[in-house]
Amino acid sequence: MKVDMLIKEAMVFNSYFKQFTKANVAVKDGKFFYIGAKGSETFTAEKIIEAAGMYLVPGLIDIHLHIESTMVTPATFSYGLLKNGVTTIVPEPHEMANVFGIAGVKEMIKASKNCRLDMFYAIPSSVPATSMETTGGAIEIEDIEELLQTERIKCLGEIMNYYDVISKPGGKTNKILSYMSENYPELIIEGHVPKLLDLELQSLAFAGVTSDHTHQTVAGMKERIAIGMFLEIQEKSMTKEVIDYLIDQDVDEHFCFVTDDVMADSLQNRGHLNVLLKKAIAMGMSPEKAIYACTYTPAARMRMYDRGVIAPGKLADFLLVSELESFHIQEVYKEGTKVYDETIPYVQEESSQAFPSSFYESVNLNKLDEDAFQVKLMKNDGKVKCRIMNVKNGSTFTEEKHDDLNIEAGMLQWEESEYGLLATFERYGKNGNSARGLIGGDVLKRGAVATTYSHDNHNLLVLGQNKEDMVIAANEVIKQQGGICCVHNGEILANVPLPVGGILSEEPLSIISKQVEQLTATLQALGYEHYNAIMSLSTLSLPVSPALKITDHGLIDVNKGMVVPLVVK
Amino acid sequence: MKVDMLIKEAMVFNSYFKQFTKANVAVKDGKFFYIGAKGSETFTAEKIIEAAGMYLVPGLIDIHLHIESTMVTPATFSYGLLKNGVTTIVPEPHEMANVFGIAGVKEMIKASKNCRLDMFYAIPSSVPATSMETTGGAIEIEDIEELLQTERIKCLGEIMNYYDVISKPGGKTNKILSYMSENYPELIIEGHVPKLLDLELQSLAFAGVTSDHTHQTVAGMKERIAIGMFLEIQEKSMTKEVIDYLIDQDVDEHFCFVTDDVMADSLQNRGHLNVLLKKAIAMGMSPEKAIYACTYTPAARMRMYDRGVIAPGKLADFLLVSELESFHIQEVYKEGTKVYDETIPYVQEESSQAFPSSFYESVNLNKLDEDAFQVKLMKNDGKVKCRIMNVKNGSTFTEEKHDDLNIEAGMLQWEESEYGLLATFERYGKNGNSARGLIGGDVLKRGAVATTYSHDNHNLLVLGQNKEDMVIAANEVIKQQGGICCVHNGEILANVPLPVGGILSEEPLSIISKQVEQLTATLQALGYEHYNAIMSLSTLSLPVSPALKITDHGLIDVNKGMVVPLVVK
Repeated sequence: MKVDMLIKEAMVFNSYFKQFTKANVAVKDGKFFYIGAKGSETFTAEKIIEAAGMYLVPGLIDIHLHIESTMVTPATFSYGLLKNGVTTIVPEPHEMANVFGIAGVKEMIKASKNCRLDMFYAIPSSVPATSMETTGGAIEIEDIEELLQTERIKCLGEIMNYYDVISKPGGKTNKILSYMSENYPELIIEGHVPKLLDLELQSLAFAGVTSDHTHQTVAGMKERIAIGMFLEIQEKSMTKEVIDYLIDQDVDEHFCFVTDDVMADSLQNRGHLNVLLKKAIAMGMSPEKAIYACTYTPAARMRMYDRGVIAPGKLADFLLVSELESFHIQEVYKEGTKVYDETIPYVQEESSQAFPSSFYESVNLNKLDEDAFQVKLMKNDGKVKCRIMNVKNGSTFTEEKHDDLNIEAGMLQWEESEYGLLATFERYGKNGNSARGLIGGDVLKRGAVATTYSHDNHNLLVLGQNKEDMVIAANEVIKQQGGICCVHNGEILANVPLPVGGILSEEPLSIISKQVEQLTATLQALGYEHYNAIMSLSTLSLPVSPALKITDHGLIDVNKGMVVPLVVK
Repeated sequence: MKVDMLIKEAMVFNSYFKQFTKANVAVKDGKFFYIGAKGSETFTAEKIIEAAGMYLVPGLIDIHLHIESTMVTPATFSYGLLKNGVTTIVPEPHEMANVFGIAGVKEMIKASKNCRLDMFYAIPSSVPATSMETTGGAIEIEDIEELLQTERIKCLGEIMNYYDVISKPGGKTNKILSYMSENYPELIIEGHVPKLLDLELQSLAFAGVTSDHTHQTVAGMKERIAIGMFLEIQEKSMTKEVIDYLIDQDVDEHFCFVTDDVMADSLQNRGHLNVLLKKAIAMGMSPEKAIYACTYTPAARMRMYDRGVIAPGKLADFLLVSELESFHIQEVYKEGTKVYDETIPYVQEESSQAFPSSFYESVNLNKLDEDAFQVKLMKNDGKVKCRIMNVKNGSTFTEEKHDDLNIEAGMLQWEESEYGLLATFERYGKNGNSARGLIGGDVLKRGAVATTYSHDNHNLLVLGQNKEDMVIAANEVIKQQGGICCVHNGEILANVPLPVGGILSEEPLSIISKQVEQLTATLQALGYEHYNAIMSLSTLSLPVSPALKITDHGLIDVNKGMVVPLVVK
């Protein structure tokens, strides 16, 4: 019998029994055809792989992530993931949606279509996440409807406003959920329900939300599994108690691993979903169980019936691994075709601009001058008590503190204080809003940094200790139509141009990863003491992340869900 | 908070942990709203059920069965199943399709729509099962396409011609499977793959078939599970070795229980899927595991995401059971509404004709006379060696044997022999075919029985020991437009009128079940020694069931797949 490929004597992962068994594997038309004892006496194959001593593992599947977190295009992302054994993903283009609305989603899907990696999309459900910011785009019910009708969609992405679901029956989020329940009752709806328990948690499930990917505790996991919520375990949830629970309990069907956000340098230097897989094994999980949670359960969760297992009729997406514990990947195959071989140089193909020209002109701002970083107050002179965002290493949450600053001739003398200035400028040409706040703690102590990569609105956000550096950084970012630029003493020390929507680079992974590395090092050198300075910086504008943040509407008291003035009454 | 119902202090089945836990359960809008410790202090309910000491179990789900096997309408079936705790089924109207083609399928679906029990349909994929018989209807690719587009379909029903799939690449079955793979790659395709193993079995899986409901062995189950086939365990598969395997192995996700064919008297007297559930428990399976296989896994297999578990947002289909081992059902609820209460008389509603008038005129035959049961041969006198269908109790398979019979004036003298005559008459007005064969073994020794309930073609099949009784039985069935009539010494001893397509009764379950009981007793009294005489009789015309059967094309050698003459050369 003719087949395309015969893999001989591999240790083959059987997902249904969660065990490895020695077998021959025949591949035909990009699918597994046969797994068993029959070999060359039965099959004539164009290609034969002698795989004795190797492990045959299904391609890894990551069902919750944002490509924009890596600041690269789908093509670069595909390149970066394949060598790490990831063959299918479900990205949610939440950031592109905040910049461009439905067009951002559609263009990301379009840019994914010719990638070797399979990308099935989640529709961003919470764009904008609040009404306290100006974004470039919004996703409304009719947009979701259009995307469901026209694109290859797997689910509705994470419902971020869990508070609204519980307490605002007529709010936008509940309107979306009701519409889906009515019109798409079988649609998978992804959740974001940190810390919720009991009746509040169950309200989300009743509304149709059936997963959670936020930070987990054992008590929280028990309640989630008990009501049928699927757990998507991120690296930050991989504590000893969580992993021990997943190892010891009979809950294999109810969780998988996901990456959510991976920085470009981390993708280049550490890897991707395979990093979590290895970590789980290192923490005591059996390789079989860890592989199951990176292949079978994510496919099952997203109802991808054609993959995630090595069985007749399933897509021949697979890895050849030389050793289970280290999970050393030797070769990667997508639908029976080799896409990575560690013995052959792995080179990223050059690519031209992948998006419409308007996507490269998204920073609608004139050059700024020092006046933009003046804080003008009603009072002419004296002291004034101000709200301060206080950053602490280890968290993206800030604290609100209060302190007295001097005023001279109506101008807040922030440069002479111990605090920096955080300013944001609406950049979509919608209203020209800008806002300013004070910031302290484990942030930049010298110079300035400007970024259009600022969640979720991605307006121009500028953080600095002096106006001169802030102007240079801001104008560099405006000039290059987006990115992150770090300046000290009038000199640009690090720069990550992000010309696509102000949030993505089209450089190859090797370059963007170095740019990001250099930026992180520079921010740290300038006193930004956060373990992930870029994440800390880019979430200072995120109005669903406690406690005091800034948007173009002003300072946001996130816990109260309202704009508050800089000056404390 | 207002809810519709609060069930207090029940032992609630949690499907995700496969365990019972004491909890209160709130129901709202026909769905479960909350399961936990909160009670009357939180919820105001219109209806409160004090359920201390009772077990709350999800409604049972049967995903492989044929309503026609019970010879009743969907309305009667719904009535019969609800009291047994079955709240959702996936019937395959294979017999109605053989009689009426797509119209039969559509009318069954239509007749199901107002039933309290939820019925989601499987499309019969193998109608007719072979080309060696004349049926009233056929299901072609365009019919499947139309049904998928217009009806509430869950799957493509059992692919019966597994032999064709393996060995006839261009045959009808492979054409259907290719079309589905191309156009409906996610469609669930049900299988019928008795005894197949290794490469042959995997060929079916490669072609898209992903379940099996035939008789199982442990070796066969292992191979099926290993390639991702879902096992639908019928009562006949519930041997000690099979149940022990399912108990001992970690394969809970890979099997469920199904009834397939339940006779009307069995439904009335024994029950339905609950019979298998109780039997599994009696054989040593934990109640939790048995319930899981009658609720959670069948729902998962059929991708019914809205039911099968007691969890927020899921349909409130549930049973109150007083004791787990005996599975004594006290009350049954469908979407929060009580549909059965053992303390209240359970009366079947009267119903009028549920089908179009043409469905009551499906036996297109004139009255027969004794000539119809003469076997005329070319030879005038002497002896002739004939093929004989030999029936053995315990099986629906026959054996072929040969014996010499006398001929006089060109007529086979079968009445003087030890054998009976089996004659079949094409009854759809398509070609007027008829055929005759000889039968022996554990069948009717006296009198005659005529039936239009004869798989799969449902032509008029008449079995008898003398022409007079055969004429009376046949004409009675023709007169009443279908059914099964048993005659001895010129007297009708039992009669089951089946006016809908010649295969269904519209009598209430209490009456049809008694008619079937009486028929079985009569057949046995007349010497039909088979443990299920009706099933034995009705499969004598089934040309996919070995070894020698009869259709209007003649005697069928099933193993050779061809028509063979009565006279052995």
